[in-house]
Amino acid sequence: MPKEIPYKIYLEENEMPKYWYNVRADMKVKPAPLLNPETLKPMTKEELSEVFCEELVNQELDDNTREYPIPQEILDFYKMYRPSPLVRAYCLEKKLNTPAKIYYKFEGNNTSGSHKLNSAIAQAYYAKQQGLKGVTTETGAGQWGTALSMACSYFDLDCNVYMVKVSYEQKPFRREVMRTYGASVTPSPSMTTNVGRRINEEFPGTGGSLGCAISEAVESAMSRDGYRYVLGSVLNQVLLHQSVIGMECKIAMDKYGIKPDMIIGCAGGGSNLGGLISPFMGEKLRGEKDYQFIAVEPASCPSLTRGKYAYDYCDTGKVCPLCKMYTLGSGYIPSSSHAGGLRYHGMNSILSELYDQGLMEARSVEQTSVFAAAQEFARVEGILPAPESSHAIKVAMDEAIKCRETGEEKTILFGLTGTGYFDLYAYAKFNDGVMSDYIPTEADLAKGFASLPDLKL
Amino acid sequence: MPKEIPYKIYLEENEMPKYWYNVRADMKVKPAPLLNPETLKPMTKEELSEVFCEELVNQELDDNTREYPIPQEILDFYKMYRPSPLVRAYCLEKKLNTPAKIYYKFEGNNTSGSHKLNSAIAQAYYAKQQGLKGVTTETGAGQWGTALSMACSYFDLDCNVYMVKVSYEQKPFRREVMRTYGASVTPSPSMTTNVGRRINEEFPGTGGSLGCAISEAVESAMSRDGYRYVLGSVLNQVLLHQSVIGMECKIAMDKYGIKPDMIIGCAGGGSNLGGLISPFMGEKLRGEKDYQFIAVEPASCPSLTRGKYAYDYCDTGKVCPLCKMYTLGSGYIPSSSHAGGLRYHGMNSILSELYDQGLMEARSVEQTSVFAAAQEFARVEGILPAPESSHAIKVAMDEAIKCRETGEEKTILFGLTGTGYFDLYAYAKFNDGVMSDYIPTEADLAKGFASLPDLKL
Repeated sequence: MPKEIPYKIYLEENEMPKYWYNVRADMKVKPAPLLNPETLKPMTKEELSEVFCEELVNQELDDNTREYPIPQEILDFYKMYRPSPLVRAYCLEKKLNTPAKIYYKFEGNNTSGSHKLNSAIAQAYYAKQQGLKGVTTETGAGQWGTALSMACSYFDLDCNVYMVKVSYEQKPFRREVMRTYGASVTPSPSMTTNVGRRINEEFPGTGGSLGCAISEAVESAMSRDGYRYVLGSVLNQVLLHQSVIGMECKIAMDKYGIKPDMIIGCAGGGSNLGGLISPFMGEKLRGEKDYQFIAVEPASCPSLTRGKYAYDYCDTGKVCPLCKMYTLGSGYIPSSSHAGGLRYHGMNSILSELYDQGLMEARSVEQTSVFAAAQEFARVEGILPAPESSHAIKVAMDEAIKCRETGEEKTILFGLTGTGYFDLYAYAKFNDGVMSDYIPTEADLAKGFASLPDLKL
Repeated sequence: MPKEIPYKIYLEENEMPKYWYNVRADMKVKPAPLLNPETLKPMTKEELSEVFCEELVNQELDDNTREYPIPQEILDFYKMYRPSPLVRAYCLEKKLNTPAKIYYKFEGNNTSGSHKLNSAIAQAYYAKQQGLKGVTTETGAGQWGTALSMACSYFDLDCNVYMVKVSYEQKPFRREVMRTYGASVTPSPSMTTNVGRRINEEFPGTGGSLGCAISEAVESAMSRDGYRYVLGSVLNQVLLHQSVIGMECKIAMDKYGIKPDMIIGCAGGGSNLGGLISPFMGEKLRGEKDYQFIAVEPASCPSLTRGKYAYDYCDTGKVCPLCKMYTLGSGYIPSSSHAGGLRYHGMNSILSELYDQGLMEARSVEQTSVFAAAQEFARVEGILPAPESSHAIKVAMDEAIKCRETGEEKTILFGLTGTGYFDLYAYAKFNDGVMSDYIPTEADLAKGFASLPDLKL
């Protein structure tokens, strides 16, 4: 007999997942390997280890190990903010008058405000284990940088964050959180790297870009002894760490005999979505159970729904390996009217391959409808969601409304990746009625596709 | 046998408190009654009901009912963000190398970011029950206003918030949260009330004050049909609602056989401290158990440690009833260098009476030491605390360090009332090393005391 289901399910400490699940182990067709942009041959462990921590390179390249035991030090840190609650959205169901049962996994109850901390602590741990002095990274609005600064503070690692200059100046709050955790935060482009100096010279007064910040962080890591570069999304290792989200969900749902019919997540680089769906996807890949998976992306940056499946540069600076993924081209830039994250031109290669095989669907939604859903959700469920998370809310609500119309009692699970406390400029725009939508034209997309490398593979 | 104690204790749904505890019922000497400032006689239910909701007036005046059953609608809302976790601060203990056992009750895991929501939902509920159209209130930095807007949105009540103009303009984020929840937010002094127009005329360009915002909110409520005024601290009804914090703590600690030796809370108007200690204080008053209670206030606004126990005005506008309390005088204004909340000149009358009877201690701490403690806490425990909460952290750490020196294994419980996500201007000052301390001179205090009414009681 299933137990009575609480409003919010918190796993007990002895029920918590002890390992990360690597979905690649159950994929018959594996994601395509990273390529060296010069030789066009698969990146070797040695090559990657110049930039990344060794154990993280192992995880990045490992298509076969199904279960990675989570080191005790990371389990200890997870205890500080995990388990995250799996919540039954009773109030939202009532508001929508739907027979659907809606659950969400809420990852926002930590100071970084999102799921990013799950991977940040793992990456900091492996850097510490390797005896490194510190790590470098880039951050846009600052969610990932905040998470990494918390993780580095815990392990007493130096943390250097290149923050896109326009965010550094206009959104000082996350910068101050990072500084409170002891990170050094440098506005990018800076004068501390060759690439930064070059860009400052070419474009005086530029506000910077994520692509430039990545290039600076990589250069900084490679030019200093005892430093490596770390990244908060897109990579397979990040999906592996984020599988803790899906593992907790699955353990909790199994415990109470709940089986989701559909699982919905927002998709930028893919870290949250991949982590949420991985263990469920594993069951689907092994033919044990079936689920409908839906990736939700912004209409302004539609890498899955309108992109091409091709090898592309991971960064606009073209310093990283080539990756086969659904992409809009590294030269694609979403309109500045686009709020929040999910601006990445590509998509994690595991998710790209699963999507290409038809194992996962994708939808794109426009931002004003996303903020309207966010507001409705906040008013009934209490939590003010991040704009990114609200993409998943929007589609979950759409699906619940369909159930009202058809009478189907579907069980919907979606990932609520974080809170919107640092996104209130965007909410203000919505509240003031001055937020607009942007859907790229075919011509806009063509410009991005023109930046795809011509590899002659 | 006590069960194995988890890192974080979450009560099960069936263990949650079903009633609020009214500590006045166990006090032999009751707190002094509110007085009508004109007649100097105790305020009657009828008089108070012109300003406040009826059931809340009952609660305000009731010195005898020990247990107030929490209405089901409020229990349902509590489920959205309660129970709050009771956390064992293992990492902080390790960092301090102390034999003390430190626990904290964390109230920040909700969108209002603090414990204020516990009373906001109760007040909104009773307003709705009374058939009111809406409520008015004031807010400084916006914590209470945010909580109230969430509560009103849930019960579909109109919510009008007068926000101190300087905060409205300089701290727009909480304003946007309130608007997202459907509240109308008016910068105070405004042109919508007599008192606002008068102050705007007398002091053109003024940034406003909490006292003025209170007066506007009260005037607005009294001049509109179907509206009442609500307040987030200081009142006895608020302590009653906030007793849910202490009730949850006590149930959780009793379950695992933990008995705190000392209980520490920050004190502004007293809502959090009173709520946290109430059920423990009840045991002390009934002679069942003994505890050490410590109220922590800022050195810049030391109402308990340096104030007078006297009848005083609750607001600078002098429109509210007179209240006997520890006070610095309604004319006392802490230095503008003072960051965060805890700026109230007085103190809830229950806590004032308990302090006067020697049942509770008080300490004052300086803000740079508070922010240093906050930073240390954040780095080891993950949570970025509100400046207000950090007053309690500071004294808890001091006490744990004393235990290191004496070898005593004391069990310390403190209230972590909220998060500092909207207080990053203050953190930035601290990070930049430009935060200063302010300790009022005797002459500064004398100016405040000069504003005390000469009542000839």
